[in-house]
Amino acid sequence: MAGRLFGLGVGPGDPELITLKALRHLREAPVVAYFAARSRKGNALTTVEGHLPPSKALLPLIYPVTTEKLPAPFCYETAMRDFYDDSARAVAAELEAGRDVAVICEGDPLFFGSFMYLHDRLAERYATEVVPGVCSMLACAAVAGTPLVYRNQTLTVLSGVLPAEDLRRQLAGAEAAVVMKLGTNFAKVRGVIAELGLLDRARYVERATMAEQRTLPLDGIDPATVPYFAMILVPGPRWEA
Amino acid sequence: MAGRLFGLGVGPGDPELITLKALRHLREAPVVAYFAARSRKGNALTTVEGHLPPSKALLPLIYPVTTEKLPAPFCYETAMRDFYDDSARAVAAELEAGRDVAVICEGDPLFFGSFMYLHDRLAERYATEVVPGVCSMLACAAVAGTPLVYRNQTLTVLSGVLPAEDLRRQLAGAEAAVVMKLGTNFAKVRGVIAELGLLDRARYVERATMAEQRTLPLDGIDPATVPYFAMILVPGPRWEA
Ligand SMILES: C[S@@+](CC[C@H](N)C(=O)[O-])C[C@H]1O[C@@H](n2cnc3c(N)ncnc32)[C@H](O)[C@@H]1O
Ligand SMILES: C[S@@+](CC[C@H](N)C(=O)[O-])C[C@H]1O[C@@H](n2cnc3c(N)ncnc32)[C@H](O)[C@@H]1O
Repeated sequence: MAGRLFGLGVGPGDPELITLKALRHLREAPVVAYFAARSRKGNALTTVEGHLPPSKALLPLIYPVTTEKLPAPFCYETAMRDFYDDSARAVAAELEAGRDVAVICEGDPLFFGSFMYLHDRLAERYATEVVPGVCSMLACAAVAGTPLVYRNQTLTVLSGVLPAEDLRRQLAGAEAAVVMKLGTNFAKVRGVIAELGLLDRARYVERATMAEQRTLPLDGIDPATVPYFAMILVPGPRWEA
Repeated sequence: MAGRLFGLGVGPGDPELITLKALRHLREAPVVAYFAARSRKGNALTTVEGHLPPSKALLPLIYPVTTEKLPAPFCYETAMRDFYDDSARAVAAELEAGRDVAVICEGDPLFFGSFMYLHDRLAERYATEVVPGVCSMLACAAVAGTPLVYRNQTLTVLSGVLPAEDLRRQLAGAEAAVVMKLGTNFAKVRGVIAELGLLDRARYVERATMAEQRTLPLDGIDPATVPYFAMILVPGPRWEA
């Protein structure tokens, strides 16, 4: 019999923010797969390391590139498609051998996570269970100590990779908003937020719930120091209930 | 010394979807406060009951109304403002007596949760810590087995309480969307989704991760059976990486 595929949300970084359910499946699974950049452990593995016995079989899935902007003739989409195909094959080989595979995922597996591309390739062929996790957006709100979205307000979640004009249009119409994937996109995103007069409401949060976490108003930030693992929150106007 | 205020996300319903951190604070806190409708336990208490010793002091915060549509001369906003003021006073009395209070919250405390109104009233006066939780939106995606939002897509989270024209405008421009707070709003929301040609992509999920959970395509639903604890997901178009 084929093994089962688990997508386990392990939360935003603090090892204590894993759920009881993800921890149980993590311990029971004979194989733990994780995504990471070359020569890095990746956030998901770093988060659960303390929960793993040293004997656990690990299956690393190493990203071929770490930026969407590649010099011609290289193409991000092609590189990633091949990578996810290969990753799915590596996971499927374990499943075919009858071993359950737990793919550990930073935050939640289905919220902008790489696990989604394995899910799209494997969930119809193998028994699959997704264990939802605490996503980074809500970890950032907790760390910043700010309610994110009140009552019947609309929340818009954006990627900082989007062009300035798309960000401007979407943020202009938003009540509460979150901009993820900062890194080199930070200066562009802050520029748009300033133009729209939202600087006062916006908060920057970096590496939420990890040891090196920081949270600051936007104008205090040097763009050169902004990592990928950071986001901007624009909480909805306080509902004066 | 005054006690500390904790807002603990306890997850969407499955008692195993609480985090290690929320469970630790839940066990340590001398007083556990929870929101619920009159003569109900409420989802948060139902979720953590099995984790609580029988001796734990409980502080129920009972909603005065359960719908936003009140007959004149009653006003939802006024009723809720008074209720949150009273609730904050009840919690503050415990804190002043030197006892920590853990407010247990369905899903995540800062994502459309009642805890936000205690936070707005108390966080500046008392040491406050928010422990993020697994929100219902991501639990619903896990239960439906569908990735929610790919790569650089925008996610729009809406309340089903909004008028049809607002829902139409916002859903028309959305890549991935979630509509919360269904109940009696279901027929209106489904009508808008049908008009926009989104029925095929949309999924309905009710009481995700609870014993009575169900997930169905939208056209199979009898509006009269739809509870408040349900939502519609419109996942973003699959990214063919
Ligand atoms: C590919 S998405 C993955 C999101 C993840 N699946 C989740 O549920 O949070 C990566 C983005 O998540 C955000 N992020 C993830 N972890 C974070 C953290 N601990 N603090 C701040 N932002 C974080 C950053 O904006 C980053 O660019
Ligand atoms: C006031 S909001 C609270 C959201 C909560 N703080 C969270 O983080 O999920 C209530 C809405 O959440 C959604 N909801 C909460 N729990 C749910 C569940 N287990 N299944 C489906 N929807 C749920 C419903 O749309 C409901 O109308």
